[in-house]
Amino acid sequence: MLWENTDHSASEATLQYTMEPKEYENRFLPYDVLTNLAHVTMLNRQGFVSDTELSELRAALTDLYREAEEVEGEDVHTFVEERVTRRTEAGKKMHLARSRNDQIFVDTRLFMKDATIDIADRILGLIAALDEFAAEKNMLIPGYTHQQQAMPSSTGLWASSYADALVDDLRSLRATYRIIDSNPLGAAASYGTSLDIDRDLTTELLGFATKQYNPIYCSNRGKQELQLLQTLDLVMLDIQKMAEDLINFSEDQQFFQLPDEYCTGSSIMPQKRNPDILELARAKAEEVSAGKETIRRIIGKLPSGYNRDSQQTKKHLIEGIDTVRATVDILTALIEALELSDDFTVDEGIFAAYTANRKVKEGMPFRDAYHEVKSSEEYEVHDDVADPVRQPIGDLPEFWAAERESFDEMSARLLTAE
Amino acid sequence: MLWENTDHSASEATLQYTMEPKEYENRFLPYDVLTNLAHVTMLNRQGFVSDTELSELRAALTDLYREAEEVEGEDVHTFVEERVTRRTEAGKKMHLARSRNDQIFVDTRLFMKDATIDIADRILGLIAALDEFAAEKNMLIPGYTHQQQAMPSSTGLWASSYADALVDDLRSLRATYRIIDSNPLGAAASYGTSLDIDRDLTTELLGFATKQYNPIYCSNRGKQELQLLQTLDLVMLDIQKMAEDLINFSEDQQFFQLPDEYCTGSSIMPQKRNPDILELARAKAEEVSAGKETIRRIIGKLPSGYNRDSQQTKKHLIEGIDTVRATVDILTALIEALELSDDFTVDEGIFAAYTANRKVKEGMPFRDAYHEVKSSEEYEVHDDVADPVRQPIGDLPEFWAAERESFDEMSARLLTAE
Amino acid sequence: MLWENTDHSASEATLQYTMEPKEYENRFLPYDVLTNLAHVTMLNRQGFVSDTELSELRAALTDLYREAEEVEGEDVHTFVEERVTRRTEAGKKMHLARSRNDQIFVDTRLFMKDATIDIADRILGLIAALDEFAAEKNMLIPGYTHQQQAMPSSTGLWASSYADALVDDLRSLRATYRIIDSNPLGAAASYGTSLDIDRDLTTELLGFATKQYNPIYCSNRGKQELQLLQTLDLVMLDIQKMAEDLINFSEDQQFFQLPDEYCTGSSIMPQKRNPDILELARAKAEEVSAGKETIRRIIGKLPSGYNRDSQQTKKHLIEGIDTVRATVDILTALIEALELSDDFTVDEGIFAAYTANRKVKEGMPFRDAYHEVKSSEEYEVHDDVADPVRQPIGDLPEFWAAERESFDEMSARLLTAE
Amino acid sequence: MLWENTDHSASEATLQYTMEPKEYENRFLPYDVLTNLAHVTMLNRQGFVSDTELSELRAALTDLYREAEEVEGEDVHTFVEERVTRRTEAGKKMHLARSRNDQIFVDTRLFMKDATIDIADRILGLIAALDEFAAEKNMLIPGYTHQQQAMPSSTGLWASSYADALVDDLRSLRATYRIIDSNPLGAAASYGTSLDIDRDLTTELLGFATKQYNPIYCSNRGKQELQLLQTLDLVMLDIQKMAEDLINFSEDQQFFQLPDEYCTGSSIMPQKRNPDILELARAKAEEVSAGKETIRRIIGKLPSGYNRDSQQTKKHLIEGIDTVRATVDILTALIEALELSDDFTVDEGIFAAYTANRKVKEGMPFRDAYHEVKSSEEYEVHDDVADPVRQPIGDLPEFWAAERESFDEMSARLLTAE
Repeated sequence: MLWENTDHSASEATLQYTMEPKEYENRFLPYDVLTNLAHVTMLNRQGFVSDTELSELRAALTDLYREAEEVEGEDVHTFVEERVTRRTEAGKKMHLARSRNDQIFVDTRLFMKDATIDIADRILGLIAALDEFAAEKNMLIPGYTHQQQAMPSSTGLWASSYADALVDDLRSLRATYRIIDSNPLGAAASYGTSLDIDRDLTTELLGFATKQYNPIYCSNRGKQELQLLQTLDLVMLDIQKMAEDLINFSEDQQFFQLPDEYCTGSSIMPQKRNPDILELARAKAEEVSAGKETIRRIIGKLPSGYNRDSQQTKKHLIEGIDTVRATVDILTALIEALELSDDFTVDEGIFAAYTANRKVKEGMPFRDAYHEVKSSEEYEVHDDVADPVRQPIGDLPEFWAAERESFDEMSARLLTAE
Repeated sequence: MLWENTDHSASEATLQYTMEPKEYENRFLPYDVLTNLAHVTMLNRQGFVSDTELSELRAALTDLYREAEEVEGEDVHTFVEERVTRRTEAGKKMHLARSRNDQIFVDTRLFMKDATIDIADRILGLIAALDEFAAEKNMLIPGYTHQQQAMPSSTGLWASSYADALVDDLRSLRATYRIIDSNPLGAAASYGTSLDIDRDLTTELLGFATKQYNPIYCSNRGKQELQLLQTLDLVMLDIQKMAEDLINFSEDQQFFQLPDEYCTGSSIMPQKRNPDILELARAKAEEVSAGKETIRRIIGKLPSGYNRDSQQTKKHLIEGIDTVRATVDILTALIEALELSDDFTVDEGIFAAYTANRKVKEGMPFRDAYHEVKSSEEYEVHDDVADPVRQPIGDLPEFWAAERESFDEMSARLLTAE
Repeated sequence: MLWENTDHSASEATLQYTMEPKEYENRFLPYDVLTNLAHVTMLNRQGFVSDTELSELRAALTDLYREAEEVEGEDVHTFVEERVTRRTEAGKKMHLARSRNDQIFVDTRLFMKDATIDIADRILGLIAALDEFAAEKNMLIPGYTHQQQAMPSSTGLWASSYADALVDDLRSLRATYRIIDSNPLGAAASYGTSLDIDRDLTTELLGFATKQYNPIYCSNRGKQELQLLQTLDLVMLDIQKMAEDLINFSEDQQFFQLPDEYCTGSSIMPQKRNPDILELARAKAEEVSAGKETIRRIIGKLPSGYNRDSQQTKKHLIEGIDTVRATVDILTALIEALELSDDFTVDEGIFAAYTANRKVKEGMPFRDAYHEVKSSEEYEVHDDVADPVRQPIGDLPEFWAAERESFDEMSARLLTAE
Repeated sequence: MLWENTDHSASEATLQYTMEPKEYENRFLPYDVLTNLAHVTMLNRQGFVSDTELSELRAALTDLYREAEEVEGEDVHTFVEERVTRRTEAGKKMHLARSRNDQIFVDTRLFMKDATIDIADRILGLIAALDEFAAEKNMLIPGYTHQQQAMPSSTGLWASSYADALVDDLRSLRATYRIIDSNPLGAAASYGTSLDIDRDLTTELLGFATKQYNPIYCSNRGKQELQLLQTLDLVMLDIQKMAEDLINFSEDQQFFQLPDEYCTGSSIMPQKRNPDILELARAKAEEVSAGKETIRRIIGKLPSGYNRDSQQTKKHLIEGIDTVRATVDILTALIEALELSDDFTVDEGIFAAYTANRKVKEGMPFRDAYHEVKSSEEYEVHDDVADPVRQPIGDLPEFWAAERESFDEMSARLLTAE
């Protein structure tokens, strides 16, 4: 038998079918500790947990954070509750006024905030690499339309077009971040709780800009995840186009020399140097985009209130984020190492529009100039190299830096509170 | 033969295969006139077009706008150029320093701006309908999780959850609008022009917040279209969930009475009243989402510079926008006419968590209270009706109203300029 | 106002929102007449309709088929019923033992059968064009991997690889056709009818291979549509790759000369000849694939029994089929007109594996030969042109010809029955 | 820092970015051994490998199969080559006349054949469970359309509708299997090899029905994977609908009693029994469908010849297959344990069409009968329970059993050859 054994009892099968991979649970462990710290602090302020209990809970949770163990048991929430309860009876109170639903919602929201800030920072790095390339390695190349040489362009104009695109993406990412930056804790099992909790306090402790108001809307798991991946889809769309250009420009069109460390050889063709990373970036952009659509489809047509379907969004969120981070990083490194080549030919036809425009400046109507150039096939060639150009980046770097600082402070504050 | 005849000559076939449906061209006609008015005004300022020519061009363009004819010939740009040239020789100069590429880019951008403002306004109407329903028709209903009665909820809490969601969508739509609100005119065939044009002037005349800086990035047709449909996908996702709830709540669960004018009968089952509109809204949400993905896939993996593939995005943009508008409108009307029913049963189990929480308040640990309620199956029932709650709408109504005014003023100014 | 007027009364809006475009209804008119003819013949045999009534119904239906009018009113079924009832009172009996549900199911099934046979025939034409090209225009070209010249290939090997792929597709299309070729008429509104109908008779009259057995399964609208588009997605995937190759091979790599009548010019670059058809074929392949996914998403998560959502599949079915037909046709014509070019350079490195293999034949181990070739960069060049090769086509041409004949006979028989 | 450390050197990053997870490589190990056994046997017959070498290679490969180790190093092919070469120098010859490309192609094909047979067998099990349920637990229930009670139905008619659907799926799966059942080994790096190999022999040894003819077509990685997942998408579509019905029928509509072992409780609502498995099945159907689309998008727009992008299809293939197997199994077990409930109400309106039909049998025209029933709201009730009905299964069980036997024999033969 080439298949692994899969005979299970019915109850094992049920468990296997519903449990999430531990690798994803582990990713949420630090966020779950933080949200527990905020929750028990609030429970203390509201009188559900004594000061002594709070101290014990904090000690147990903080240690758990530092040990960074592997999650065991059903899920990260149960794991944390069990570990804390081993240390203190007060662990039994941690679930008060909460549900596993709003626990995973708020954990996910923190995870997304952290990831978004991290990715934004990496995108700033890619923009910087493109800016530097555009400034320092600018030369005339033909610009293509319809995969044909069309007009004069430059490597600087090309590189800065991606920087321009990525600034748009950072703006969109900020808008998405602001939607994500709201606290669902307190929604309980989708309809709130009859206990007297203080949602504003957990919102403040966890560093959210606002609470998410309506508990039924809070339970709409997957929508924010979808929105984040939508924006990352835009990022990957830009990077995919860059990868496609890099393949074309270094293979058939030969303006670029791909750095050796980003190429691979062939097992039977000794002469080959293949742009595998760029091909994989092209493929992975599709995976991120399709992963986003998987989330959309999982949550589509669901009625309001919690439905278990939405659990399946977690995998696609994590995988999407990991892929984007890895791809931005590798492309940044590749752009930093990218060299120009001068081993390419320019079709003089790319100066046709320029030639016609020269005639226009001398007074000829455009349509006449166009036809004259077309029939004569005589072109005025120039060697002007177009300057790089992109929109101003504004306060985006400062914004993301401030969010990083504030996120880390929130985390430190919760972990060191007395 | 049940098939229509499809024998064509090769060249007819080519033409048929590449041309876009006239119904879409007609939709762009008013925007094309506006962008032509801005372009010729700029050409005049830069000295390419005389004052007399400008007057003639304006007259011809303005008349064309008012007549609102059906587009004939290859496309809307060629049609406008031909019609204007019939009136004045200066028509031949209109194409100067432009390409059909940046013409369609800028037309599409105006179309998207206009449509986004329009849709935002309709969403505000839907929010108002939900707010009113929540305030005036609030009663206790069971809240569902896992498609089971779970906790006490209310029709007001339910309706305001969608208002809460739609406010998020309006915030996202504003962010998307700000990305779209940039002027690509001047990118020409993806690499700019060697003629001395004034992109800042056309940007101002057309009422854009900024020019789009890099001409190669301008030619990245479809990305902004994708981003708009991404945001509309979020809107439709919310509406789809609302439709799903409305079907469940009025059929099996019977809290609601669907208004007659939104139901249809059956051709063989005399007793039926079917919620067709809601089923279609559910389906159309998938169409909008899938249409967005079609755009993503059409533009994916394309190299930079114009590629004809991107033309195929237009159909999906227009269809998506039309579907969203129609769906928001019909749901608004339906919510306005929706009546409550009292013909439903509440499972007392929905008060289980409440009962356990009461014991907690009296001092029992939550886990003990939970187990006691579970074994006794005795519930404390209450008849509190949860209040509606949603996030504040902030300055969103003012923002969209201002954009509508400014768009209309831009249009009026161009059409009445002397 | 740049928007068309959309102020409607509530009921107009409902109607507008639920009605399907008349252009799609018209496409189903001939099939609806055929299924009506079969149905009333059966009703006559079962004693529900008299011989005189049958004659009148046949006359009215046959005339309607010949006149090929535009559908008016709610939908094609209502239109046919109304037109026939104008001619004879017996028209009122036509709906007996049926629902609009199984009417549209069976109409759609006939439409799909007809379309599938038609497309298969066109694919056979494309295979013939590729075979002829491979046989008559075979020359050595470099074969690419990773978008780099890699190994010796030939235009014949290349063209026959697509013929090989399309034969697979025809085999898959036959399997799909056999699934589609089952009669849902008699399922009524998803649960059959209590009247004594003869489903075997309508199955025979309409030329189906079998009835579809379970009425609830019959009502699963969209699944067969999805399956057909899945198979057409494979066809378009092959054609898309061919289009991508044709662009690369005629632009950067220059083995091919695209025929003029399949290229277009540029409005501002006099020197350009653009492969627009191939770019659009590339885009339209995505549209067909995405259209298929739209159907999948519309019907996903629906409970059993008819749901109105499924109506929205019709548009995507028709558009997908039309696009495939047009694309197969245009590519066939283009392949027939495609010319070779000799204006390309071959990198001698493509003979590296061949050179290493020569050393292997002389006794050297492969890994040593590989390294020797790699360091020496000396290649043994040959000018063998690889022969075309593809799998045998078997009885596929005969199968599809027989299905065409049998479909046309069925249609003729019903339309001329006395 | 909540993020794991991700600082790598550039070359580590490259490696990390391009390597596939070892868990997938391990899955292909047994198939890689088999294809190596067939390949070296062929090399021996063609004179490239001596009899002694063949014996040593077989011994090493067979042992490797039996040890079932974890793959180390770059990929499964390199791992096998290294391990064998540790045992015998002849290991260096194994790569002769092959490329890693056709190695992974043929491994994948065997993996897909094995998986398809396995899944088909499980589907037969699900059909059997549905048949038994339909036969033994048949009672009258209302049939729903538009999520409303519409017509009399039965649990047997309902269950057999899914059996009917799954028989269609098994037919489609057979057709897909026949496409997959072709041997790409010998395509080398997409353009064949100049060495004298015998593709018919490896085809026979590996138990393929045929060789895949054209080497360029062989290198079209992902198309067969896509086609298999397309068919599995149909299977999951049926199962998803079944899950949706099971949720509705056991929650709101209460015909069914879900077995306890397939339900879960709530952490804060003691009274809840949630149908988590069915919700997850519903979600996982979307994942399989979206995974298929990911493959489609990864391979779309690629030129012919090997491209590294296609490597990313492997993950989605394996995950899709695993999900389908697990879902079919759990649903089979659930159907076997499913119990009827009699705690539901039937709306007498479901007998309306029956009542009208009774009047028709007594001579009244249908439209009159329809209107009379509608206004009187008096229904003739009956208690006939509709029999289960599905299409005959034909020789499908025998076909799949024979393929299983022949696959296992092939494997045994290669592993025990002398």
